[in-house]
Amino acid sequence: MFSHLPPAVTIYEVGPRDGLQNEARPVPTADKVAFIDALSATGLRAIEVTSFVNPRWIPQLADAADVARTIRRVPGVRYSCLVPNRQGLERALDAGMDEVAVFLSASETHNKRNVNKTIAETLAAFEDVIPPAHAAGARVRAYVSTAFGCPFEGPVDPRAVVDLAVELQRRGVYQISLGDTIGVGTPVQVRDVLSRVLEKLPAEQIALHFHDTRGTALANILVGLELGIATIDSALGGLGGCPYAPGASGNVSTEDVAYMLDGMGIATGVDLDKLCEASTRVASLVGHEMPSKYLKAHLGERARGERRRAPTPSAEPTTKTGT
Amino acid sequence: MFSHLPPAVTIYEVGPRDGLQNEARPVPTADKVAFIDALSATGLRAIEVTSFVNPRWIPQLADAADVARTIRRVPGVRYSCLVPNRQGLERALDAGMDEVAVFLSASETHNKRNVNKTIAETLAAFEDVIPPAHAAGARVRAYVSTAFGCPFEGPVDPRAVVDLAVELQRRGVYQISLGDTIGVGTPVQVRDVLSRVLEKLPAEQIALHFHDTRGTALANILVGLELGIATIDSALGGLGGCPYAPGASGNVSTEDVAYMLDGMGIATGVDLDKLCEASTRVASLVGHEMPSKYLKAHLGERARGERRRAPTPSAEPTTKTGT
Repeated sequence: MFSHLPPAVTIYEVGPRDGLQNEARPVPTADKVAFIDALSATGLRAIEVTSFVNPRWIPQLADAADVARTIRRVPGVRYSCLVPNRQGLERALDAGMDEVAVFLSASETHNKRNVNKTIAETLAAFEDVIPPAHAAGARVRAYVSTAFGCPFEGPVDPRAVVDLAVELQRRGVYQISLGDTIGVGTPVQVRDVLSRVLEKLPAEQIALHFHDTRGTALANILVGLELGIATIDSALGGLGGCPYAPGASGNVSTEDVAYMLDGMGIATGVDLDKLCEASTRVASLVGHEMPSKYLKAHLGERARGERRRAPTPSAEPTTKTGT
Repeated sequence: MFSHLPPAVTIYEVGPRDGLQNEARPVPTADKVAFIDALSATGLRAIEVTSFVNPRWIPQLADAADVARTIRRVPGVRYSCLVPNRQGLERALDAGMDEVAVFLSASETHNKRNVNKTIAETLAAFEDVIPPAHAAGARVRAYVSTAFGCPFEGPVDPRAVVDLAVELQRRGVYQISLGDTIGVGTPVQVRDVLSRVLEKLPAEQIALHFHDTRGTALANILVGLELGIATIDSALGGLGGCPYAPGASGNVSTEDVAYMLDGMGIATGVDLDKLCEASTRVASLVGHEMPSKYLKAHLGERARGERRRAPTPSAEPTTKTGT
C-alpha cells in the first residue's frame, strides 16, 4: 500500500466558484476579491475564481468580470474560471483570464438539467470554446460531473466516464476533473472508475473533485493518490453545500485535504494556519459555520490555548477515561 | 488495491459510552436505555453500553448499573462496558455484563492524566481485572488510547503501541482496539503503526477506534480494511465531541462508516435508515446536531423529498452548472 503516492499534489481550490455559487447570501465583489487574494497568500497554486455563466443562472457570480479584473495575481498561482460557451469564454478572456474550464455531466439527465443540452450536443458545442481558447493562448480544463453517481439516474456507467475522458482529451483539454457532484462515491467504486480511466489517460491529465456529502471524500482521495492522481479539487472550509440540504457538506474542505496530505508527507505548498485564517473570514461572509473538520479542530485548539492561559481550575481538561 | 478487504466487518458501537460520557447535558437513564434498545434494533452486533468508572470522574455515566440491568438484550448482539478496576468489574458483573473492556494509553502523560498511574502500573493492575473477568466467564477487550498521537506528548512511538498490544494479548484480552483519541492520525501513519502491530498479532485481534476530529477517520479506516482489520469502533451520529472544542467531532460516525462499507460491498448487517432514525432521536436528547455527514445528507434528502411533493415552482432544483 502507498507504493505509488505522488511526492507532491496540486490542490485546486474551487471555493470562490463552486463554493460561493451555492451560497444563499450574496457576497459583495470586494469581499470575493479579498477572499481570493487571501487564498493567493496561502501557498495554493491553482484557484478557480469565478464562473462566466449567464447571471440569470447564477446571480451569485454575476460579477465574474469584475472579480477577474480586480484580484491580485500572484506569480506561481494559476487562476481559472468556468465558461459555459463562446460568449462566456470571450468575457473571460476580456477579463484577463488565461485558464478556463468547460463542463458536462456523465449522465444525460443531469447534463440536460444543468446545461439544457444532450451530452453529444455539449461536446459539439465545446468546438466553439476549446479551439478559440487555445488560439487565445489559454489553457482549458474540463469537468465531468456526476462521474460517480447522478441525482436523477443513480449509478453511472464507468464506461461513459471513460468515453468522455478520452473524447475530452482528444479535444485538447489539459486536464479532466472527475466530479462526485452529489458526494455518493465510495472507495472501491472510485478505484473501479479511475483505474478504467487510467487505462486510457495518464494520471497527470486527471484530477478528482469530490463533494463530501456523506463523509467519504478523503477516503476516495486516498484511492486516487494511490493510483497516482496528483491534482485534488477542494474548497476552503468545505464551501459549496446545497441550499436544499441544510447543513449538508459541499466540496471536500481544502483544510482537511491539506492536513491529510501533510500527514502523509505529500507536499502541497500550502500553509494550514493561513488557510484556517482565510476560512474563518469566509464564514463571516457567508453567515454560517464552515463544515471543515480540521478548521473546527484548529479553532478548538486555539480556544483551549486561550483558556489554558487563564488560571481557572475549571479549565482543567476532563479527558479521564476517554479512549 | 483492495485485494485484502474483509468480506464482513463488525461495527463496534461506542456511542452510549464514549459518546454520552462527553456530553454536557445529562441524559436520563430511561433515555439512555431507549437509545441502546434502538441501537439493538439496527442490526449492530456489538454495543458498548456504559462505563463502570467512578461517578466522580464521569457523572454522565453514574447510572451504569441501572442502564446495564434495564436494556433489552437482543440475541446476537454483544453488550460491553468499560471497567477501570476490580471494583468496576464487580459492579459490571453484578449488573449482568459478560463483556468488559480495560483501557490504557500508549503515552505516559495521557495515561497518567487519565487513570493517575504509569503505564506499567496500569498493566499490573489489569491482573485484578482480566483474570477475575475470565473466571466469571466474561470476555475482555482492551483499548490502547493515544496510539496515533498524544495531546500532551505529540507523536507516539509505534513501538510503544506494538509492545502494549503484545503485552495485552499475553494477558488474555480477546481484542485490542487502537485508539486515535484526539483524531490526529493520517493514512501513512496508520499503515505504519498497524502493519507493525500485525507483524505480532493476527488482524482479528485488532480493532480500530478513530475520532474524526480532523476528518481523516474514514481514510484511516480504509487503510485498516486493506490490512485486514474487520472490527471498527464508531459512535452513532459521531457522538463524543470534546466539550472544550465546540463543534469538534468526536468518534467517527457509525452512519458514515456503515455507508462507506456498504458502498464497498463489505457486509455490516446494519440498516442505515434505522441508524439515522436512532441518531435523529439522540440529537434531541443531547440538544445539538450530530456531526455525521451521512445523517445530514439523509435528512436533506428526506426534506427535499417532502418539498418535491409540494407543487411550488421555487422548489425546482437549482443545480445549474454545479460540478
